[in-house]
Amino acid sequence: MRNVAIGQAGGPTSVINSTLSGLTKELSGDYSLYYVKDGYGGLVENNLIKVDEKMILKLNKYTYLPGAFLGSGRYELSKENLSQIVFNMKEKQIETLVFIGGNGTMKALHKISYEAKRQNYDLQVIGIPKTVDNDIYYIDHSPGFGSAAKYVAYATRDLSLDLASMKNFEQVRVVETMGRNAGWLAAASGFLKRDENEGPHFIALPERPLNKERLLETVENSVKENGYATVVVSEGVLWDDDTGISFNTFNNRTVLGGVSQKLSHFIGEETNLNVRAENLGMLQRCFSKLISETDKKEAFLVGIEGGKYVRLNKSDVVVSIDRVKQKQYEMKMEPIPLEKVVRHGERLMPDKFIDNLEEYYEWLSPIID
Amino acid sequence: MRNVAIGQAGGPTSVINSTLSGLTKELSGDYSLYYVKDGYGGLVENNLIKVDEKMILKLNKYTYLPGAFLGSGRYELSKENLSQIVFNMKEKQIETLVFIGGNGTMKALHKISYEAKRQNYDLQVIGIPKTVDNDIYYIDHSPGFGSAAKYVAYATRDLSLDLASMKNFEQVRVVETMGRNAGWLAAASGFLKRDENEGPHFIALPERPLNKERLLETVENSVKENGYATVVVSEGVLWDDDTGISFNTFNNRTVLGGVSQKLSHFIGEETNLNVRAENLGMLQRCFSKLISETDKKEAFLVGIEGGKYVRLNKSDVVVSIDRVKQKQYEMKMEPIPLEKVVRHGERLMPDKFIDNLEEYYEWLSPIID
Repeated sequence: MRNVAIGQAGGPTSVINSTLSGLTKELSGDYSLYYVKDGYGGLVENNLIKVDEKMILKLNKYTYLPGAFLGSGRYELSKENLSQIVFNMKEKQIETLVFIGGNGTMKALHKISYEAKRQNYDLQVIGIPKTVDNDIYYIDHSPGFGSAAKYVAYATRDLSLDLASMKNFEQVRVVETMGRNAGWLAAASGFLKRDENEGPHFIALPERPLNKERLLETVENSVKENGYATVVVSEGVLWDDDTGISFNTFNNRTVLGGVSQKLSHFIGEETNLNVRAENLGMLQRCFSKLISETDKKEAFLVGIEGGKYVRLNKSDVVVSIDRVKQKQYEMKMEPIPLEKVVRHGERLMPDKFIDNLEEYYEWLSPIID
Repeated sequence: MRNVAIGQAGGPTSVINSTLSGLTKELSGDYSLYYVKDGYGGLVENNLIKVDEKMILKLNKYTYLPGAFLGSGRYELSKENLSQIVFNMKEKQIETLVFIGGNGTMKALHKISYEAKRQNYDLQVIGIPKTVDNDIYYIDHSPGFGSAAKYVAYATRDLSLDLASMKNFEQVRVVETMGRNAGWLAAASGFLKRDENEGPHFIALPERPLNKERLLETVENSVKENGYATVVVSEGVLWDDDTGISFNTFNNRTVLGGVSQKLSHFIGEETNLNVRAENLGMLQRCFSKLISETDKKEAFLVGIEGGKYVRLNKSDVVVSIDRVKQKQYEMKMEPIPLEKVVRHGERLMPDKFIDNLEEYYEWLSPIID
């Protein structure tokens, strides 16, 4: 039986284990499966576990739980690491490598595939998408995003209603979402907004630099009209003079976060209003009790589809989700070249959605369910 | 028809409007109802709205939404304010005052009742409990708490599973919950923990001052054994040398918050581990998609019960929930003297629960459902 190594990498999503379940279901029995522990780190350190009956039973318990079942993590791949990975693959006679991940993972897979070719080792490489940021190119929407968007939409609506009733004490809330370069998640915050007066009253997306005057004017107008203002800000937003609003050092690298606190201080000082920061944090990618059913189903299906590509000997491809129909939603999956995905880089929100959020919310509707 | 004024005060809960619905349902038709806008502020400013059919239809839409339907807020009652309130009640011929609130509200009601007596005005005063902190004395559990505890339990479990899979990148998360003086909410964070190795690995309650060495030792041991550590901290926790961990100034008064960030920095500096703060924030009191069904039902029932006390001419009482049976859970409601509740102050977690969390989780189980 052909040996297949399977891993998960990057930040987990609430449905990442459904994908692993689909993939495992499709392949087990016909292939000899190995799980890679803790992302690429496990490839470098040759930390592979043979998948047996017991492991599959354990996975079944974790299918609907957050956190990557195999362990994940972040890991910079050096030249030596890449060489070591291919060496390890050869040694264990791994002929197929499948990873579930985001843009970073697709880049890593591309490098590993290139290194295998350089060493004349025949390695089948397949990428399966997952990201709450929804920023993988050529994919209509990535598994994990729908559930995260649903959490952001309900959390913002609820925080806004809560604030509305406390306006004699607190007038402004700045809600921070994930999304380094792409505003898909932040923009989802207005999905449940029913009329102009409800929050969010201002959404700052990383695609559009933030103008201080426009922000303050919108906040002050909303406080004048409604008594309060809900501001949503994506973690990667920059001021329009190109300066970052907030960067923190974490694990010896610069990570985003804290932008809501910085903006809260800014608004508080400039307006004399009482402002509170609410960072939605990691719950966006792991809150298990508000998963989108469509997202959960599709996460499973991309796993199955990835397994089919293994059977069909497709290599250097990524499973993509394409939207066939918007009304009476229908999607189809197909393989797209890994190189194409990697070359294009991050997928930002298109102008048509940024300039017309109603159109975006229509598009979002079947994914959030 | 007798004129009854109804208000909501203090921080809202996810089920606060169910109580208003129950109360309104019990009384409308037989009494002339007035809604007080924005808490005690509305009493002082005589901001009362006659409840009509249209208002009730609007309330029906808000019954299962968070935020106080009538507006709430915080407000310090001066002697002049109290006198003004009773003056306003007399003028509008309000004979009954019912407020839905926590300890602060019960104190305010007690003062208003005292002032009415001083002015020889016959005012019926009834308090209905709501608080996510669960700190009202003589009440087994207050409406609002069960839903907040459920959110804390799931959020902590999910954040912990997410962290477990990212341990090569991040080893410690400090999760901050509400609870100024009482640890009911923070302690609920371990409700879904299935075995010793799972998070939370350390829970800091305001009832027990925090020892730095014990905290660091527990974190380091858990990282050694499990690769990661989840720490939960209640916003009001103090170091055992009696110094506060974090106080911020907000709205010209000291408010709690930010303790998770301070603790994260502390742990990061002392251990060289990578630590992230996660403040569960206001979503604890308003997340509409993870409401406890028992909590929602009981929130409605205390409203009905409060209405019955109006009919029975009971005054200076609070609706209390008493637990009749733990197994095959059963509760009963009864009036308790307002003065008794006010005199006793905040209800902390008893030692028997702090020292035996399993016993606490059994007690918690029927409320969280």
